[in-house]
Amino acid sequence: MNAPAPATSAADLVARRPVGHSLEAPFYLSDDFFGLDIEAVFARSWIFAAAEAELPEPGDYITVTVGPYSVILVRDDDEEVRAFHNVCRHRGARILNQERGSVGNIVCGYHHWTYGVDGTLLHAESQAPGFDPSCFGLKSVHVRTIAGLVFLCLAAQPPSDFDEVADRVEPYIAPHNLRHAKVAKQIDLVEHANWKLTMENNRECYHCAGHPELQRCYFPLYNFTEKNVPPALRPTYERFVKAEAEAHETYESLGLPYATIEELDNRPTGFRIQREPLDLAGESFTADGKAAVKRLLADFPTARLGRLGFHLQPNAWFHFAADHAVTFAVIPLAPDRTLVRTTWLVHAEAVEGVDYDLDTLTHIWAATNEQDAAFVARAHQGISSPAYVPGPYSPTESQVEDFINWYITRLKAYLER
Amino acid sequence: MNAPAPATSAADLVARRPVGHSLEAPFYLSDDFFGLDIEAVFARSWIFAAAEAELPEPGDYITVTVGPYSVILVRDDDEEVRAFHNVCRHRGARILNQERGSVGNIVCGYHHWTYGVDGTLLHAESQAPGFDPSCFGLKSVHVRTIAGLVFLCLAAQPPSDFDEVADRVEPYIAPHNLRHAKVAKQIDLVEHANWKLTMENNRECYHCAGHPELQRCYFPLYNFTEKNVPPALRPTYERFVKAEAEAHETYESLGLPYATIEELDNRPTGFRIQREPLDLAGESFTADGKAAVKRLLADFPTARLGRLGFHLQPNAWFHFAADHAVTFAVIPLAPDRTLVRTTWLVHAEAVEGVDYDLDTLTHIWAATNEQDAAFVARAHQGISSPAYVPGPYSPTESQVEDFINWYITRLKAYLER
Amino acid sequence: MNAPAPATSAADLVARRPVGHSLEAPFYLSDDFFGLDIEAVFARSWIFAAAEAELPEPGDYITVTVGPYSVILVRDDDEEVRAFHNVCRHRGARILNQERGSVGNIVCGYHHWTYGVDGTLLHAESQAPGFDPSCFGLKSVHVRTIAGLVFLCLAAQPPSDFDEVADRVEPYIAPHNLRHAKVAKQIDLVEHANWKLTMENNRECYHCAGHPELQRCYFPLYNFTEKNVPPALRPTYERFVKAEAEAHETYESLGLPYATIEELDNRPTGFRIQREPLDLAGESFTADGKAAVKRLLADFPTARLGRLGFHLQPNAWFHFAADHAVTFAVIPLAPDRTLVRTTWLVHAEAVEGVDYDLDTLTHIWAATNEQDAAFVARAHQGISSPAYVPGPYSPTESQVEDFINWYITRLKAYLER
Repeated sequence: MNAPAPATSAADLVARRPVGHSLEAPFYLSDDFFGLDIEAVFARSWIFAAAEAELPEPGDYITVTVGPYSVILVRDDDEEVRAFHNVCRHRGARILNQERGSVGNIVCGYHHWTYGVDGTLLHAESQAPGFDPSCFGLKSVHVRTIAGLVFLCLAAQPPSDFDEVADRVEPYIAPHNLRHAKVAKQIDLVEHANWKLTMENNRECYHCAGHPELQRCYFPLYNFTEKNVPPALRPTYERFVKAEAEAHETYESLGLPYATIEELDNRPTGFRIQREPLDLAGESFTADGKAAVKRLLADFPTARLGRLGFHLQPNAWFHFAADHAVTFAVIPLAPDRTLVRTTWLVHAEAVEGVDYDLDTLTHIWAATNEQDAAFVARAHQGISSPAYVPGPYSPTESQVEDFINWYITRLKAYLER
Repeated sequence: MNAPAPATSAADLVARRPVGHSLEAPFYLSDDFFGLDIEAVFARSWIFAAAEAELPEPGDYITVTVGPYSVILVRDDDEEVRAFHNVCRHRGARILNQERGSVGNIVCGYHHWTYGVDGTLLHAESQAPGFDPSCFGLKSVHVRTIAGLVFLCLAAQPPSDFDEVADRVEPYIAPHNLRHAKVAKQIDLVEHANWKLTMENNRECYHCAGHPELQRCYFPLYNFTEKNVPPALRPTYERFVKAEAEAHETYESLGLPYATIEELDNRPTGFRIQREPLDLAGESFTADGKAAVKRLLADFPTARLGRLGFHLQPNAWFHFAADHAVTFAVIPLAPDRTLVRTTWLVHAEAVEGVDYDLDTLTHIWAATNEQDAAFVARAHQGISSPAYVPGPYSPTESQVEDFINWYITRLKAYLER
Repeated sequence: MNAPAPATSAADLVARRPVGHSLEAPFYLSDDFFGLDIEAVFARSWIFAAAEAELPEPGDYITVTVGPYSVILVRDDDEEVRAFHNVCRHRGARILNQERGSVGNIVCGYHHWTYGVDGTLLHAESQAPGFDPSCFGLKSVHVRTIAGLVFLCLAAQPPSDFDEVADRVEPYIAPHNLRHAKVAKQIDLVEHANWKLTMENNRECYHCAGHPELQRCYFPLYNFTEKNVPPALRPTYERFVKAEAEAHETYESLGLPYATIEELDNRPTGFRIQREPLDLAGESFTADGKAAVKRLLADFPTARLGRLGFHLQPNAWFHFAADHAVTFAVIPLAPDRTLVRTTWLVHAEAVEGVDYDLDTLTHIWAATNEQDAAFVARAHQGISSPAYVPGPYSPTESQVEDFINWYITRLKAYLER
């Protein structure tokens, strides 16, 4: 049956995207754009998948979902992280059903095809004489780690700029010593919104009045300069200027790089990295700004390091403090459902109940995530009305527009391929 | 991938609609017709939205759903009811998340864009110098009230015959004094059927043996004339003739108009209005036919006024008695899910527990609604079989056919626009 | 909006089906293929619907689902089983809402149209003079029984080879006396997988290590010959050879046909029938292989008859032992949901608690079904990944390939019709 009205093609919608405005509704709502986002963006970009701390030993694995894909991350016998599609080469069964575990070999539970942790097919029973196991190894997925963070790319030819990005951000992140961290807590939150609304929401603090817990320790000056700080934020700004000067001294003395790099929309692996002070005690994301973990991530002489913020298009952001790190991975599940996986990392030898209290550690970001989930759900609901029209970004939402620019560039590249 | 069989276009299905028969299955089942129904029917007709009694004071609002649309109805400072799309002009968030409440201004909870109850954008923080708030007022929705009932139209140019319909029905409804009524109870029922099945079911009493409670107080002679009354209904018919004669005397003496007007399928705002006696005590929809509310809706000298029935294409019907009124609004949610919102209205000063018992007031229509929900669900289930073919309407289902005629005319007008 | 990538037509996917491999993903996942499977396969083949034991008396009925169809099976006054579409000829309501019951006439609960158990419209109230009831009988469905098993076909012209199949299998099944059986238990299990994965799984025992209960009583030598029995199964094979020799003697002495017939993919009504010994006591599907029911299905001089296995494309398989029979019907519900209805039949006069214990009777197949549901769900999950590619069948999966061959032949016949 014909659709009731002439539809606009994805290519036309991409081409006529209104600069400086939010996207037209089909980008957020339609099954077609959801499929396009998976193929053009998620299957072709470097995606943050996990912390290395999730697979400490050889044989440890986790299964991660990227849209319709399921990927096995496993630490091999050389302690390298490998990635494979979680699909048996026999009749396609999902091989590993658990979220995490430890294996000697990777054995499909259906007909017991057995693969090594390097993906080679070691055994398949009852095959005809001509069967060649070397043709049926697990399909591999590109994987890279940066200072304890694991990234994967589903494309045959991943974006080539990742190495350069890795080289530039590694000096910022490596001092936080994530290769010797452990997972203190992981929370999966399903937001009832398109994944792009989740990412847009993360790129602005225009809505931060809705985050009372975060506002206490965080200088809510995102994207303001001295000239355009709103009057209500002026005292905060003065406090920030003082804290920043102190912080820069500390960073210099410890050799911690802190120059902001912002290349959000001019490369396939768009990113932003920034080191900045926190408010109050300035140490961590807690109600009083003091460290939540006594055992710091590394042998820092002070916990007063503020935060290192790292953002990576299309699916991740990170906060690194002296005492802990928090990673956020965004995974599209459906046009209107998005998984946000938040992981709190602490020093591998920090002991819960002794060195840290889990509620204190996780309180601010868990609360902030819940608030953000409510925000993006109402955004998705509103956009679902045919009365929705794209509205203008304010200057404080420039990084939202950067994200949209990056996204549109990816779609164009895909559609013109 | 191609559909397995050549599909028939909506236009062809409309064109070949079998007169005198129920519609072909895709009208009831397909996503395409659901979209067409929203755009061609619900977004272009006058829709019953609420009773004015739901917004008694300035600043009172309710949010109503019309298919994918969310609309704010708010009483402004001049006590007029206004209607706006519930979509922020910034990035499209749903502004008001609650079903009802009271506001000074209409403030979006995401980035605090603030609108007056007249829809003008009063404040949006952190905008660039050239930003013109007058370009970003809430998108308004046409709204009209008739004797305390609120209707809206989502079209840019609403059907122009509404004023005439209003003029003709207002003298019937106004005496029931709904502008001084209050909501005694509201029930939302989700029926598992296409909205047209809900409307069809309402337009015939061929199935009324399935409504034992209603049958007690209601003369089940819908669409019968003296000549074709079935033998089993003959005694009821005799009682009806006597009651009708008495009722007409009463209506004349009170100046209550009672001539039936039936223009269900020959105008955009198809309607039917009729005043008629009820059985038993003849006062109200109760087990014994006596008034359920001691305080009548107006200063009627008698409660024995039977019922005023009003039906409006495509989404509403109403019963007005001396002591209370009941409104029914039908809202499509999905091809197979339909919201029926039933609201019982009593005099603003009637006191629950003193003037009326809520269970007695609501029992018959609540039970009838549940029965109807079961009927239309089995209709929808049956039509979902590929073995379904349109069947013939009997003479007693003439108003069902009127509804279908009206509906097909709307689709044709839309498809030929 | 256009789909993001050029799609492949169903006809092209059928044409390029890789012989010797599992199907490409859209066959299992897409709505289009699901519709095609219903129309080309389920609406055109003979389908197993029920055991006659489910309708012992005239007026007894059951309603069975076949994809989007609902069918009434009813025993008429001549004790014949009739089948009708469960759709009222008036406005299409589902007539019988219950799964089973007993009726005098078939009365639609909506407007009380009344049909005889032969499908004729006996009564429809309030019709106009020219109304001809003979035009509005229930739409009939072809139905045939074989030795107590009821099969239906939704096509106008059912496959003509069914009579021949019936003639050939009836001598095998009739001795099990199902016309004098009763239902001891019926379990409906919804598997989260495409129906073809359910059928494929049933046609191989390559996965049977995952059925520890079944493995005890069943010789897991499915599709092996003496030459290719794996070493681990050699002792089992020796035991089987001995048991088979004994069994053949028994079959000969009792006149039970036991020659295997395998015509799975070369006819519209593809089937396979085989009589073979069971392990352990060799009598039944129990932990020790002993009969679960003291009262045998017929006056067999011994319970040591092994099993008669019968498989019918596209939706059924059966096991007949001396003491009970188990039927399995597979009904597609959605691309990723499939109903498996399992029915245990025992002699009509066997008494639960006296002649049999229900848990003992049902344990093995109930457990095996649950295990199979987990297997096919992981197959469906894996195939949902874009990384899935069709993999090779091993020699032991030849009947899986037979099923796929049969299926592809059906699709081709439909697409070229």
